[in-house]
This record gives sequence, structure tokens and C-alpha cells, in this order.
Amino acid sequence: MNVREASEKDFNEIWPIFHEVVSIGETYAYARDTTKSEALDIWVTTPRKTFVVEEHGRILGTYYIKTNQAGPGSHVCNCGYMVASKARAKGLATAMCEHSQHIAKDLGYKAMQYNLVASTNKGAIKLWTKLGFETVGTLPNAFNHPTKGYVNALIMYKYI
Amino acid sequence: MNVREASEKDFNEIWPIFHEVVSIGETYAYARDTTKSEALDIWVTTPRKTFVVEEHGRILGTYYIKTNQAGPGSHVCNCGYMVASKARAKGLATAMCEHSQHIAKDLGYKAMQYNLVASTNKGAIKLWTKLGFETVGTLPNAFNHPTKGYVNALIMYKYI
Repeated sequence: MNVREASEKDFNEIWPIFHEVVSIGETYAYARDTTKSEALDIWVTTPRKTFVVEEHGRILGTYYIKTNQAGPGSHVCNCGYMVASKARAKGLATAMCEHSQHIAKDLGYKAMQYNLVASTNKGAIKLWTKLGFETVGTLPNAFNHPTKGYVNALIMYKYI
Repeated sequence: MNVREASEKDFNEIWPIFHEVVSIGETYAYARDTTKSEALDIWVTTPRKTFVVEEHGRILGTYYIKTNQAGPGSHVCNCGYMVASKARAKGLATAMCEHSQHIAKDLGYKAMQYNLVASTNKGAIKLWTKLGFETVGTLPNAFNHPTKGYVNALIMYKYI
């Protein structure tokens, strides 16, 4: 497993992962019908950096890192992680989360914040908690789940 | 006191208010040296709508409303309010907050969220609490205050 920085030419391999995750609508606050060009902007162009995880030359996961708030909030970063369904439960999310914390430190951030973790996303909450993230807030009914309706969303935070 | 929707041509009057508030760096997560053209983008172009409060034909306060998160989070809006220092303690913030909640309902939002309220901004916290906002989370040291250093920031939330 190899984590490396992505370039725009990786996007043809990133897009199926993004589309698979986002079209289901259970985890990310992006429109389920986000187009490929919108996704390029969201995942690669707008963030500060984007990374991919490769195995045998195939991209199986990806994450971005960006500044969460400007000015007086700019020492806190935000990341998003996605893993291809065929590559789940192989430790890719853990590898990316740990990698992103090193990158965040290198970039001078002091903390990392996840802004909207659906309370139904038990696997992610368990994993981020294990990796040292604290649930610092609960947003009532802030996530519109495709089958469960409005569910709470957590804000998770870690000093890095 | 009259609250009305702003247009780009109001920006010459909005800018001194924005610049006064942001250059102090105590309340908003924008860079203290935000330029006029960046401010136009932040306050007028990017948000869904922008409003101004006028008295005797002069703009004394302004607020924006925008969608806080896309897709499954898009039923929650975010607002920011600014009042000229010469017009403080006249009820403008209250008037704008109440106005924004009506606008939010009209636009179909179900809740309003403030993402990063500096814990040192006691006046705002007291006012938003009085106006029905609940503190749903505390971000440790998430706001870099110009004189007090890293202080906590609150996340405040209200069903509308």
C-alpha cells in the first residue's frame, strides 16, 4: 500500500470512488448527483492537497486536506477520506487518516476537524475515535440520510 | 430601521463595516488583511443572499445567508452579521438575526448554524442564546484571538 500526492491526471481513477460514495448519500455532504467536473473542483482543485492510496498500481482510496476556516481559524484543517467499496476493511482509512495527520503537521496545522459526521456512520465514528478524535459537538438532525431521514451529525476534533 | 436585500452596488457602503470588523480579528474567521475584492466575493457573491440594514438612507449593518453544507446537509443554513461600530447597541444585530430566520424559512431551510463563535465574543453568545440558539459544541482552541491567543469556539444551532 502506497500513499502519494495526487495530480489532476489521477482524477479518472478517483472519480469512480467519489461517485460510488457520494451517489449513495449516506456519508458526505455533497449532492448525490455531483458531476465529474464538480467533483474535480471539490476534491482536487479547491483543497490544499489531495492524496491517493495505491496497491499494485491501482488507486483504491483518496483523501483531501484543506484549511477549515480562514484567518483566526486557519490553524485547523479538515480532511475527507474515501475508499473504494472493493477495498474496504483493509486498513486504508486508518492509513489515510494517520498519513493526513503527518501531512497536517508538516503544513503547520495544530488541529484537525471533521464538520459533519453522520451519526449513522458508526464505522467511521468508531475509527476516528480510535485514532484519537474527540466528539466535541452534536448537530441535531443536521444530516439528511437517504433511508433514515434526518439524523444527528457529529463534529469530531483532534490536536495533532 | 429598514432591512433590505443588498446588491453589488451597496458594497461600497458594506466594505467599511466589513473591514472594520475583520481587521480587528476578534470575531470572524476571515484573514485580517482581506482585500475589498475578496470581501465582495465572501460577503456578496458567494452567499445565497446578502442584506443590509439602513437608517436614514445609510447602511449600518449587513448580513449574508448561505447553505452551510451541500447535499445531505443542505437543509441547514449559515449566516454572518456585522454592525458598524457607530451603530452598536441599537438592536441591529437582533433585527438582522430575526430577519434572517424568516428569510431562512422562506428559502426552505430547517435550521441555522453558526460554525465558529469565539468564546470571547460574549455579547454575541448572549444575544444568540437569547434568540433561541443552542450551543451544541465547543471546539478547543479553534479561534486564534489577536490578543488572547487560542481560545475555544462555540458551534451554535437553532431549528427555525
